[in-house]
Amino acid sequence: MSQENVTQLRVWIQEQGLDAFLIVQPQNRSYLSGWLNDDVEGAGILLISQTQRVLMTTPIYKEVALSEASGWEAIIPAAREYASAVGTLAQQQGWKKIGFESTALLYSEYAKYHKVGESVYEFLPIEEDIIGKMRQVKSLDEIELLKRAIAITDQTFTHLCSWIQVGMTEKEVAMEIARKMAELGADGLAFESIVASGSNGSMPHAEPGSRKLQGGELITIDMGARYKGYCGDMTRTVCLGEPSEPRMREVYEAVLHAMKTCEAGLHAGISGKAADALARNALAESNLAEYYVHSTGHGVGLQIHEGPNLSARAPEDVLLPVGAVVTVEPGVYIPGWTGTRVEDCVLLKEDGIEVLTQSPTDLVLPR
Amino acid sequence: MSQENVTQLRVWIQEQGLDAFLIVQPQNRSYLSGWLNDDVEGAGILLISQTQRVLMTTPIYKEVALSEASGWEAIIPAAREYASAVGTLAQQQGWKKIGFESTALLYSEYAKYHKVGESVYEFLPIEEDIIGKMRQVKSLDEIELLKRAIAITDQTFTHLCSWIQVGMTEKEVAMEIARKMAELGADGLAFESIVASGSNGSMPHAEPGSRKLQGGELITIDMGARYKGYCGDMTRTVCLGEPSEPRMREVYEAVLHAMKTCEAGLHAGISGKAADALARNALAESNLAEYYVHSTGHGVGLQIHEGPNLSARAPEDVLLPVGAVVTVEPGVYIPGWTGTRVEDCVLLKEDGIEVLTQSPTDLVLPR
Repeated sequence: MSQENVTQLRVWIQEQGLDAFLIVQPQNRSYLSGWLNDDVEGAGILLISQTQRVLMTTPIYKEVALSEASGWEAIIPAAREYASAVGTLAQQQGWKKIGFESTALLYSEYAKYHKVGESVYEFLPIEEDIIGKMRQVKSLDEIELLKRAIAITDQTFTHLCSWIQVGMTEKEVAMEIARKMAELGADGLAFESIVASGSNGSMPHAEPGSRKLQGGELITIDMGARYKGYCGDMTRTVCLGEPSEPRMREVYEAVLHAMKTCEAGLHAGISGKAADALARNALAESNLAEYYVHSTGHGVGLQIHEGPNLSARAPEDVLLPVGAVVTVEPGVYIPGWTGTRVEDCVLLKEDGIEVLTQSPTDLVLPR
Repeated sequence: MSQENVTQLRVWIQEQGLDAFLIVQPQNRSYLSGWLNDDVEGAGILLISQTQRVLMTTPIYKEVALSEASGWEAIIPAAREYASAVGTLAQQQGWKKIGFESTALLYSEYAKYHKVGESVYEFLPIEEDIIGKMRQVKSLDEIELLKRAIAITDQTFTHLCSWIQVGMTEKEVAMEIARKMAELGADGLAFESIVASGSNGSMPHAEPGSRKLQGGELITIDMGARYKGYCGDMTRTVCLGEPSEPRMREVYEAVLHAMKTCEAGLHAGISGKAADALARNALAESNLAEYYVHSTGHGVGLQIHEGPNLSARAPEDVLLPVGAVVTVEPGVYIPGWTGTRVEDCVLLKEDGIEVLTQSPTDLVLPR
């Protein structure tokens, strides 16, 4: 975390009237501490006050946490009893008001901290994800890591375009994606790849199965490499040979047009709601809006899904910031028939956008 | 979910004085509904009352959820607004007390359901994970799936023993594990494989990196295949050629002895605390207890870590049930030097135990 972020967070903590803020969300923990760890099962917590930065973790993670989280004081409570350790610290420091991330803390954990605090501190839910908001604006270093993750994803797609053949199973393709990304230097996958062929394509989150790829059908491939914690995310729809029905190409072209239309209108300062409408309206013009069952995009970074959202449900007054990296991913899903989606990652700059995804969008791979 | 489980759950709901119980924990949701989905980002919830079984999900998952969750009435609220849909249902049904899984629901979600319920129902935290307890006792079908996941893991290890060579990176080994498991019919990995060589072995949860394997050092490999949702879990420590220091073999033998000692004393009806002590005491006799920084084992099933726990922190009166499948995994981690762990999966039966993991425990792979 940059010194600027520390300062910004401390100003916010003071504005909230808090003595300390408890951070449990794994990627917020990584972002602030520098300790890359996305374990949700109580791997650690952070506490930040005007004078202190404390990392609590377990003996299992002690060595790696200490080496990566420079500038943080480490406390290793017995038996993961973070709540009682926080109680002790609050007494020592005279903290009377501790805020917590209400969108990340489980109710049962809340109950523990609340109980420990009864005679010591108030334990206050904070809905605003202040660190998530900081994370929306990527630093130059973060943009470099994202570009690398996205480039590995592009290179993997280039490889797939020549490698993929009729008769392979969806699962074989998914495995090849993982193998190739690792070969290209990825830490791993940003998420489990989706390879959805033919009628499986009508399920936006279909899991790759034993279905064999056929010529002439739409194959949706949604994949991303992870590089030093940062997530690539890309979708392309391909067809091995010409589509078996002309309607498939029409639907694909409409979805591609929706992506391009959204990218053409996208800029820092537009609301996520308006950005979503750019793609949604384009599909409505093609009479396909009813088959567009998800949002247009999301931020990417340490998480594959993070803010800001490009969504019909996003508030009108929430604007996309300069420095955000977001996906643009319209899709159409027609149950029992087929589905298609295309997705780029886009960086929002002062003076326009930079489409980070470089892969071509040709539907047909000649076979 | 078997009819027996439905009945058992409804009796429990009545005993708790609840009109309905809200289930949000992803694997509990899969277990009860039959819809395999481990998405934690609001993919769906279940509500069960004396007369109803309701599954709420999003348009994205509607098709797959409807096809897999037989016997469940599906509701697809607009914009994932489960809380308001639950409010409507509670009014229709006259529900006054709705319990929820306090160890699985986020505080901010709790606050939504609580608010919607203000004039309709009480929203009551239930700490007891009743469904998790049911899941500890595996059915014959579940045991078959676990055996398959474990067998794939064993076969992958057999392959590794001949394949692995000095000079390969930890990451290459991790990739080969993923490739081989998929080839053998796994759905994927039960968890990210750990391949920790040399001094990296002193971190129990080390991530595979670019470190190259050397002859004579300890290499800890912790891996598991996932098969139809069920998780295998196994650790072996190997050495390519003879260990470079005799002390390495001594430490390894002590850890292996701790695993065997624990397995020899393990049976249904022992407490998780006493089971942990079997391994811990064995390591204490070798003066290695201070380097044993984690628990001895955990249940495996739809989750890689589930109940029952074999842990010094487990209450003395919580006994391991017949039908549980648990890991036995002592380890020793000496910062800056090396580490080693061995781990089997074990089924607890009426008349003893069955060690499901078949892989050999020879330290040295001759090279």
